Amino acid sequence: MKKIDLFLLTGIISVISINQLNAQDMNKATQAENRVSAKGFAVHSRDDHFHSHEFTRHAVGDNDVQIEILYSGICHSDIHYVLDEWGGTVYPVVPGHEIAGRVVKTGKNVSKFKVGDYAGVGCMVNACGKCSYCVAGKEQFCENRTVFTYNSTDHYHGNETTMGGYSNNMVVSENFTVRIPENADLTKVAPLLCAGITTWSPVRFSKVKAGDRAGVAGYGGLGHMAVQYLVALGADVTVFDITEDKRQDALRMGAKRYVNVNNPQELEGLNNTLDFIITTIPFDYDPIIYVRMLKMNGEMAVVGLPANSNINISTLPLGAANRKVYGSLIGGIKETQEMLDYSVANNIYPEVEVIKAEASEIDRAYKSVAAGEVKFRYVIDMKTLK
Amino acid sequence: MKKIDLFLLTGIISVISINQLNAQDMNKATQAENRVSAKGFAVHSRDDHFHSHEFTRHAVGDNDVQIEILYSGICHSDIHYVLDEWGGTVYPVVPGHEIAGRVVKTGKNVSKFKVGDYAGVGCMVNACGKCSYCVAGKEQFCENRTVFTYNSTDHYHGNETTMGGYSNNMVVSENFTVRIPENADLTKVAPLLCAGITTWSPVRFSKVKAGDRAGVAGYGGLGHMAVQYLVALGADVTVFDITEDKRQDALRMGAKRYVNVNNPQELEGLNNTLDFIITTIPFDYDPIIYVRMLKMNGEMAVVGLPANSNINISTLPLGAANRKVYGSLIGGIKETQEMLDYSVANNIYPEVEVIKAEASEIDRAYKSVAAGEVKFRYVIDMKTLK
Repeated sequence: MKKIDLFLLTGIISVISINQLNAQDMNKATQAENRVSAKGFAVHSRDDHFHSHEFTRHAVGDNDVQIEILYSGICHSDIHYVLDEWGGTVYPVVPGHEIAGRVVKTGKNVSKFKVGDYAGVGCMVNACGKCSYCVAGKEQFCENRTVFTYNSTDHYHGNETTMGGYSNNMVVSENFTVRIPENADLTKVAPLLCAGITTWSPVRFSKVKAGDRAGVAGYGGLGHMAVQYLVALGADVTVFDITEDKRQDALRMGAKRYVNVNNPQELEGLNNTLDFIITTIPFDYDPIIYVRMLKMNGEMAVVGLPANSNINISTLPLGAANRKVYGSLIGGIKETQEMLDYSVANNIYPEVEVIKAEASEIDRAYKSVAAGEVKFRYVIDMKTLK
Repeated sequence: MKKIDLFLLTGIISVISINQLNAQDMNKATQAENRVSAKGFAVHSRDDHFHSHEFTRHAVGDNDVQIEILYSGICHSDIHYVLDEWGGTVYPVVPGHEIAGRVVKTGKNVSKFKVGDYAGVGCMVNACGKCSYCVAGKEQFCENRTVFTYNSTDHYHGNETTMGGYSNNMVVSENFTVRIPENADLTKVAPLLCAGITTWSPVRFSKVKAGDRAGVAGYGGLGHMAVQYLVALGADVTVFDITEDKRQDALRMGAKRYVNVNNPQELEGLNNTLDFIITTIPFDYDPIIYVRMLKMNGEMAVVGLPANSNINISTLPLGAANRKVYGSLIGGIKETQEMLDYSVANNIYPEVEVIKAEASEIDRAYKSVAAGEVKFRYVIDMKTLK
C-alpha cells in the first residue's frame, strides 16, 4: 500500500503497465484510486500550532460508511496526544474522536445506515470482532489490537496511521459507527461519543442506583457528564474540584454538594460516605483522599489519565474497607449506542462552546482546556471549514 | 484505670478507705484485683531482641473467656510491628494474633463456650457491634474503632494497650473468639486465624469458582494458604515468587504452574489470562506485571502490606480491561468461623515448623521469616513456656 502511495505521489504510476500488476495489486490500485480526499487540521510536532492539513482516507469498503463530519469535539486527551504526553504520537496528527455527522456514502454490505442518516464515531474505528473482548462487546480491549480513531496503526488498512475528526469527513466500518437519533441536538451530541461513554460505562459497570451516594472528582468535560448521568439515575452526587468557578455549575446540574478540595475543611466528615466515585482528573493528584471516602465495598473508577498515568495508592485505605479501584476506558460500541439513546431520550448533553473550524480557534480552545477554564466542552463546527 | 494500676503498683491502695470510692471506682478496683497475670515475650524497642515479659490482662468480664494459649503463630506483620515499620508501635509489644488454645474460664453470660473447649483468637478482640460494618459482619472495619489483638488501644478497657498471643493466656470477649473443631490439628490451626482468613476472605469476596484461573503472588505464609483454598475450590492456580526453592512446594500443594518472576521468559504469554490474583507480597514490588495478567473485569486483591504500604499503579493497564484492584484486611468473625470450619473439614492447614516458647527461638524465627526462608509458618508451642 505504501509502495503504491509512493508511486502515486511521485507521479510515475502511468509508466507501469497495468498488465504487470497481479490481482492483489490491481485491488490495491483500485483502492488507492478510490481513496477519499480529506481536509482538516494537524500539528506536525509537539511544539507546533494547528495548521490546515490535506490528506486521504482509505476507500469506502463494502462494510464502510463515509461520513460528512458536522461537529467534532475537543477532548483533553487530544491535548495529551498532540503534546505526546503519553508517548507514541505519530506526526502529523489530526486529532478528534468525538464525531457527529451525516452519512454521504455507503458500502454495498452496509445495512445499518442509508445516505442522509445522522451518524457518530467515537474513539475507535475497528477491532477483530472475534476475540473474547469483542464478543463481549468490549471492542476497546480487542486482543488483536483495537484501531483507535487517530494516531493508531490501522492494520486492517495497510498499517496507515488513522486520522481523526478535526476534518471534513470520515470513512469507517458501520460496525464502529453509532446511530444518532433524529431528534438529537447535533451541536452538542459529538462529545457524548467520548466524554459521554467514558463516564456512562463505569457508572453502569458499578451498578450505581437510585439513592446511592456518588462522588465525581474533576468537574470538566467528563465530570459534568458523569454528574448528569448519576443525577438521572437518582444518585446523591458530590462534586470535587479545585476552583470556586464551577460551584454554581455543579449545583445547577443537580449535584447535592460541591467540595473545593483546596479548602481542607470542606473535606471533613466525608470519609466512608460514598458508594461510588469516578475520578476524571487529567492531572497528577492524590487519589487517597477519594479512596478514603469510599464506604465498605465501595468502588472508585479512574477514567482521567494524568500525563504520567500513574497513581500512587496506599494499600492501607484500600484494605481498610475492601474498597475497589478500577480503570475504565471509553466503552464498547453496544453500550455507546445505549448511552447515546439514553442521553438523547433524557436530554443529557454536554454544555458546549461551538467554535469555527479555524486553526487559531483550535489553538485557543486547547489553551483554555489545558488551563481548566472551559465550560465544559469545545465543539468545532466542521461545516465552517474553508 | 491507669490511676488504680498506679495505686496497685505503689502498694498504697490499702491506705484508701473503700468508703471513699464510688460504685464505679469499686468496680474498677474489683476489676483491678481480678486482673489476670500473664507471661510471654516482648521487645522493648525496635532494636531489641525478644525477652520474657510478665504483665497483666483485664479481668474476665461477664462476656469474656480466658484462654490458655497452646499454640501461637508468627506472622510477617508481627515483624512489621516489632520494627515499627508501619509506625505507631507502642513498646513493649507482645505480638501474636494467631492464637489457638483452650477455654479455662468463662464469664457468667458466656454461652458459646464452656471450660475445656478449644478456642481461637485472630487479629481483633473487640469492636462496637452496632455500626454498619459490625452489623455487616466486618468488625475489622468498625466505625468506632476495632480493637486489634496487640499494640491496639483497648477503649473498652481503660485504653490499655492490648498484648498479643506470644504468651500463656488471653482474655477476650466470646464474640471475638472462634470455635476450633474438636478434630482440628491443633499444632497447625493457629495460623488459620490470620493467614487463613486473610486469604480466604478475598477469594470468597471475588467469588472465585471452579475453572477460574487464579494467580497467587508471593508464596509464603499467606500465599500457601491462598493456593490451598483456590485449589480446593477448583481453580487453576499459578504461583509467582522470586525463588526456585518453592517451586516444588507450590506444585505439590496443587498449583498448576510456578513462575519465578526473576526469569522474564516465564512471564511471557501470561497477560490477560487470569480471573483473579491475590498479592501477598510483604516487600515493595511492581504490581503492574500482575495487573496486566488480569483478564477483562478481573480482580486483584492486595493483602500483603509492604513497609511503606504504597503501591504505584499505572491507570493505563487498569483501564485497559476494566481491571479492579482492591485491598482486603483479614475478615470478619463470622467468615473467620466459616473459614475455620471449611479448613478443618477439608484438611487445609498451613505447613508449620513448631518452635519452643523461648526468646532465642522467636528471634531465630523472625530472621528466617524476614529472609523469606520459612516454609511456611512458625508456630510457637506455648505449652513449653518456662
